[in-house]
Amino acid sequence: MKTDCIFCKIADGKLPAAKVYEDSDILAFMDIGPVVKGHTLIIPKQHYNPITETPPEVLQKLIVVVQKIARAQVNGLGADGINVIQSNGKIAGQIIPHIHFHVIPRFKSDGHSWNWTPRKYDNQDEMNGLAQKIKNALANH
Amino acid sequence: MKTDCIFCKIADGKLPAAKVYEDSDILAFMDIGPVVKGHTLIIPKQHYNPITETPPEVLQKLIVVVQKIARAQVNGLGADGINVIQSNGKIAGQIIPHIHFHVIPRFKSDGHSWNWTPRKYDNQDEMNGLAQKIKNALANH
Repeated sequence: MKTDCIFCKIADGKLPAAKVYEDSDILAFMDIGPVVKGHTLIIPKQHYNPITETPPEVLQKLIVVVQKIARAQVNGLGADGINVIQSNGKIAGQIIPHIHFHVIPRFKSDGHSWNWTPRKYDNQDEMNGLAQKIKNALANH
Repeated sequence: MKTDCIFCKIADGKLPAAKVYEDSDILAFMDIGPVVKGHTLIIPKQHYNPITETPPEVLQKLIVVVQKIARAQVNGLGADGINVIQSNGKIAGQIIPHIHFHVIPRFKSDGHSWNWTPRKYDNQDEMNGLAQKIKNALANH
């Protein structure tokens, strides 16, 4: 437990939350500032951050609970769609630095849309150059 | 393979893509319409959709590759942050109905921001009521 971490305090029962799922490793609870009502957070009880520093086996436990919550939002809330979002770093919009997955139910009438603006590469070489850098990093780290 | 699916065609080598990672089950390649340059997609080679209908063991393979790509975007592209996004349904912004994870590198200078607008529950009962519906669905499905 990280003593100054809000999510650690929730996992430890020191702060309240509207919990929807709990097992020995994972906790899911309602986001109090939902993008769409029903918005749920899934966290490991143990403190990890960001995704790059989280043990793969913890990610595997998290994603199985993410799926359970997505199914429950469809079956229990009647969601028409689901956004799963996991953000790392302030620039990415992460506020609490304890790894968490957002599972956001989407409804035809929810009035929300992401500003998803596709950009264009200057040319094929620019895209291939970035792909090569990613491949090199995969090989070297 | 689903014959009318673009991602199945990419997985099958029938359509080109700038691949960065491949194993027997999973493929990662550059999104040609990146939200931020370097934006990478991770898919299972076999056709599944949406997350609620994807075998948990496939999700577990996917999330491990998502982590690898996130690390490579940090180490190879110098990303300052990472967004992981997985969308289900047109209302959620999903365009290709073959499950995929977006791994989007974020840079201090990237000029992108999500329209992440927290809403408020009318009261505690409203939030607790939705939590209860999710819990009931978890218990009953």
